[in-house]
Amino acid sequence: MGFCLGVDLGGTNVKMGVFYEDGSLRDKWEIPTNRANSGVGVPRDIADSLLERMERLGISAGDTLGIGIGVPGQVWPDGTVDAENLGWERFPLIAGIEAATGLKVVADNDANVAAAGEYWQGAGRGYNSLVLVTLGTGVGGGIIIDGECLAGAHMAGGEIGHVRVEPRETLRCACGGFGCLEQYASATGCARMAKEELHKTTEPSMLRGLRNVDAKAVWDAAQAGDRLALRVADRFCDYLARGLAILAHTVDPEIFVIGGGVSRAGEILIDKTCEKYGSLALSFCRDTPIVLARLGNDAGIYGAAAMAIHKLK
Amino acid sequence: MGFCLGVDLGGTNVKMGVFYEDGSLRDKWEIPTNRANSGVGVPRDIADSLLERMERLGISAGDTLGIGIGVPGQVWPDGTVDAENLGWERFPLIAGIEAATGLKVVADNDANVAAAGEYWQGAGRGYNSLVLVTLGTGVGGGIIIDGECLAGAHMAGGEIGHVRVEPRETLRCACGGFGCLEQYASATGCARMAKEELHKTTEPSMLRGLRNVDAKAVWDAAQAGDRLALRVADRFCDYLARGLAILAHTVDPEIFVIGGGVSRAGEILIDKTCEKYGSLALSFCRDTPIVLARLGNDAGIYGAAAMAIHKLK
Repeated sequence: MGFCLGVDLGGTNVKMGVFYEDGSLRDKWEIPTNRANSGVGVPRDIADSLLERMERLGISAGDTLGIGIGVPGQVWPDGTVDAENLGWERFPLIAGIEAATGLKVVADNDANVAAAGEYWQGAGRGYNSLVLVTLGTGVGGGIIIDGECLAGAHMAGGEIGHVRVEPRETLRCACGGFGCLEQYASATGCARMAKEELHKTTEPSMLRGLRNVDAKAVWDAAQAGDRLALRVADRFCDYLARGLAILAHTVDPEIFVIGGGVSRAGEILIDKTCEKYGSLALSFCRDTPIVLARLGNDAGIYGAAAMAIHKLK
Repeated sequence: MGFCLGVDLGGTNVKMGVFYEDGSLRDKWEIPTNRANSGVGVPRDIADSLLERMERLGISAGDTLGIGIGVPGQVWPDGTVDAENLGWERFPLIAGIEAATGLKVVADNDANVAAAGEYWQGAGRGYNSLVLVTLGTGVGGGIIIDGECLAGAHMAGGEIGHVRVEPRETLRCACGGFGCLEQYASATGCARMAKEELHKTTEPSMLRGLRNVDAKAVWDAAQAGDRLALRVADRFCDYLARGLAILAHTVDPEIFVIGGGVSRAGEILIDKTCEKYGSLALSFCRDTPIVLARLGNDAGIYGAAAMAIHKLK
């Protein structure tokens, strides 16, 4: 059986994995992202690290289908990459890695790639379509239909964080808009809503007096039955469920997979979201499962490898 | 060149067309929908009418690829149809027409079929993806990506009318929910919002004293500069634009096509919607064209024929 390589390029680290074509992991590791000189050395670093590991594992280029890579930004049809985080604009990432490894490289946005990972070997395994919603600092998403990523005509497909769920919002989202899902159902949104609640009332709460009211603190307090935190958690899940219902009435996936840092809140988040989703969705898609992602931080390398197999085989 | 047949089954009439495979129309006609005995005679009526017309045109079954049919309801994988309007539940429509004609039959929901028609020979011709939004009594929609209809895992794909755009709504939608796009951006919604405005103020308006304040009256008055009607039109287009921005941030089509009875309002509706959409969409999908549908009441027969060619060829 052949191998393929999955790379998850982040602003801090580059995660890499060697996979068998059946989806099992042979080896994984990470290296720091070298951001010096606008990340000009990144393609070389990735190539060197992959080649060195392949040699150590006794894997030749001939045994290797190619490299898939997820990037924190947009991949253009010519293979160049925009990534604000790394200061890249039309950066020749694919060509650079191809030249340095002699292997074929395919790339896509990291949210789409993570969705492909969960579809291939994670919570979406065995389903024909899924939507992954990642609840992190922001809200990202990836849509997979019949094995294909719905990237969209302008790479806006799956930009679920900027679906507007609150027409009355007066605070501005990072995108410039008002009332985006990301303003509520993210770590940032969760912390902001908690601070607003704390400010608005004098109600006792475990959150009062904490130096840092972050999303984790809110969910821990909600889990412990803190009423103020539970209200914030309810609001968070209400907006998340509104986002999912919108996805149900547009792309209607077989399953929703919830990932990202905030998803560590676990069952309480899923239970509340399911309950609210049930009252928002049309009857025929009301039972769509909403589950936690399974691959955690490895979704990117799995998805990148899956994409390489899908596109290069 | 071969022929294919497109059928658009409605609650009142059945429209039918004979097409060349290149998409040009050879002949079209319609017959009344025989609703007696829960529409049990419909398959026979359609088959007889098609066969008679084929004979008159000198077209043999051997020259004919098959029949596509759009239905006002859901088509199940086994070929049976649910259509509330006709009292059908798991009605064997496909088998009935196949048996009576000896031709292959494929069927889909009428909104999806209309989208396929606009994609094939209408406003979406030459594009790779489109979303059709039909503004009628309700709001329907169809999503086409790379020539494939996004029907969804539970046939809720493209149920754009029930995307919730107003979390504060207290009036209930026909679906049982609150704040669905259909409650604002439909003929019914338009008339309701106008009546509310007339009730709320004593502001002079051309609409006062009309026996029937319907969507057409509202758009005619808006076109004539009536300030109250313009406010209603603005609100209508704001919600419609919110729906389109949601579609842009989920499926991100190359073009939006607006059809249905209310789209006869024409340029004023498109201009207002474009303006509002521009302030709601992410920068990279802000320029997605929003255009009027071109096939009018023929979208269904075109799309049904397109589907027959796509699936049977």
